[in-house]
Amino acid sequence: MYTLQTIPPKCAHLVLRVERFLKRYHVDFIGKKILVALSGGPDSTALAVILSLLKKRCSLNIEALYLNHGLREEAFQEELFIQNFAERWKFEPHILRTNIGLLAKKTHRGIEETGRNIRYFILKQFAQKRHCDLIALGHHLNDLAEDVLIRMLRGASWPALGGMDVYLKEDKIVRPLLFLSKDEIKSFLKMLNQNFCIDKSNFQLDTLRNRVRHTILPLFCKENPSFLKNIFRLWQAAKIDRHDWQAKIEKLKPKIFENKIEINRKELELFLPGERMRIFSQCLKQLGPGQVLFDNVMKLEELFSTRKVGKRVEFPGNKMVLLNNETVSFLKG
Amino acid sequence: MYTLQTIPPKCAHLVLRVERFLKRYHVDFIGKKILVALSGGPDSTALAVILSLLKKRCSLNIEALYLNHGLREEAFQEELFIQNFAERWKFEPHILRTNIGLLAKKTHRGIEETGRNIRYFILKQFAQKRHCDLIALGHHLNDLAEDVLIRMLRGASWPALGGMDVYLKEDKIVRPLLFLSKDEIKSFLKMLNQNFCIDKSNFQLDTLRNRVRHTILPLFCKENPSFLKNIFRLWQAAKIDRHDWQAKIEKLKPKIFENKIEINRKELELFLPGERMRIFSQCLKQLGPGQVLFDNVMKLEELFSTRKVGKRVEFPGNKMVLLNNETVSFLKG
Repeated sequence: MYTLQTIPPKCAHLVLRVERFLKRYHVDFIGKKILVALSGGPDSTALAVILSLLKKRCSLNIEALYLNHGLREEAFQEELFIQNFAERWKFEPHILRTNIGLLAKKTHRGIEETGRNIRYFILKQFAQKRHCDLIALGHHLNDLAEDVLIRMLRGASWPALGGMDVYLKEDKIVRPLLFLSKDEIKSFLKMLNQNFCIDKSNFQLDTLRNRVRHTILPLFCKENPSFLKNIFRLWQAAKIDRHDWQAKIEKLKPKIFENKIEINRKELELFLPGERMRIFSQCLKQLGPGQVLFDNVMKLEELFSTRKVGKRVEFPGNKMVLLNNETVSFLKG
Repeated sequence: MYTLQTIPPKCAHLVLRVERFLKRYHVDFIGKKILVALSGGPDSTALAVILSLLKKRCSLNIEALYLNHGLREEAFQEELFIQNFAERWKFEPHILRTNIGLLAKKTHRGIEETGRNIRYFILKQFAQKRHCDLIALGHHLNDLAEDVLIRMLRGASWPALGGMDVYLKEDKIVRPLLFLSKDEIKSFLKMLNQNFCIDKSNFQLDTLRNRVRHTILPLFCKENPSFLKNIFRLWQAAKIDRHDWQAKIEKLKPKIFENKIEINRKELELFLPGERMRIFSQCLKQLGPGQVLFDNVMKLEELFSTRKVGKRVEFPGNKMVLLNNETVSFLKG
């Protein structure tokens, strides 16, 4: 059996970097039971290997769940791969079969969207059933870069532009490989002679994700070979800023009702415009679905800072903000 | 002669949007003498037209400077164009001839870089000689989008990622068209039957700028037709945040010496991590040339927030930060 002591030093180094990364971002993982979302691709394969190698050192209990969506013929070969793979690295594998095609038809949604939704849903349910403390996903630095570019495309602002989270405490989700590039992950597996499966559907250019992956991101990396490193820095900066804003917003004590949030104008005046715009956005998000349009938040801030009274700004999802004499009210319905 | 009243309403509307944009960003332009940097291309041609149309309404005095860099044969035809164009729109044209090729050779720099440097240098000198209050540049929303993508490529963080400024008060530079897309500008000129010159060198893919313009940006716009609008929102958000941080940093009173800046530790403790990192960066920039590496600023913040004493972090350009018992010192040399 492989241990941190018997694998090549370069591999052990990478494993320890993952441990440090998780600690740096305050992921509560020591002594926990972790469910790895295992597809058999290089990312989740490396993830299962790395967590298995940290098992003893961090007192982990590792299980893995493979979902056979019934979409690709290769999936049944993948099931076999998972069995052998789990035996080699000594973790408990689970295999679940679903029929995404049927589900997508039933719910009138795309296969891509259905797959994603059902994947998270099943993972969550399964983690609960198996009493797992965390669900580990294989997203890495290339995924993060794609995410940042897609967010940029879709008009995300700061700090959302910095990309996905490493740790979603409430959802019990963790992404231990987020700082590692695809190349680093692949050469890690190569050094360990660990093979993996290839999902051919990742190469089709019919989804935005794949077009970003195979067309746009390579252009950025070609122009600047350090682009992925830059993305990681951007991500770090975004997390720091979000934390700062969060800390500030928490000092605010809004009155929360059924379909209404109310904040004192005097309290809001203590904040700077950019901070206030983030408070406005957060209150609107809290009221439920409906996009928090940037232009409308700008308008709201302008009305607020020029001390307008009796004005309203409307938002999609039947949401509205009222500027009263003493308060600002966020209303739904 | 054309006036706001005699041109098509759509054109007048656009001109008034430019006026509002300048007012919104506190550009001090009413009653001023403005030097337009005129290349004869669509952007600066539209800029000269728009400012000419605002002449009466905003009591402007418009002059334009065309630089013939001696690089392209067409430039001499462009000189003729400028003469006729200025006559039509009633502003004073100036033409200066330089020899960039010769200058680049002399200074051992690229033609692109030399061109940019010399352009700004000559514009500034000329503006001073003619007692102009402002230099107007034709950069528009597509230029801004390119700028954001290039900054992203090069690893800019927030708020620098938001792109170029509309108004550089000290340099007397203004970019009145920054919110308008290339398409809007071209259809504005078309409605006025105003032709323009085409600089073929813009189509070569030998510079990063042109590759972003002709390859990367079109991919983003194809994926999301509202991409340029999103870039403008990102720019707005960045300007608000920068203003906020600037307002906070100004409250700080560092001691500034010849090659040293000193800040009290207690004062710095009043700030949040992201704010402090921007203070650190600004102090380092103030010390002179040398890249302010993000990773080192992160390290500095980590040392500071864990109350380390007697530690130092070094930066390129022979710069260094010392964490003393009571102060943080930024040193050069």
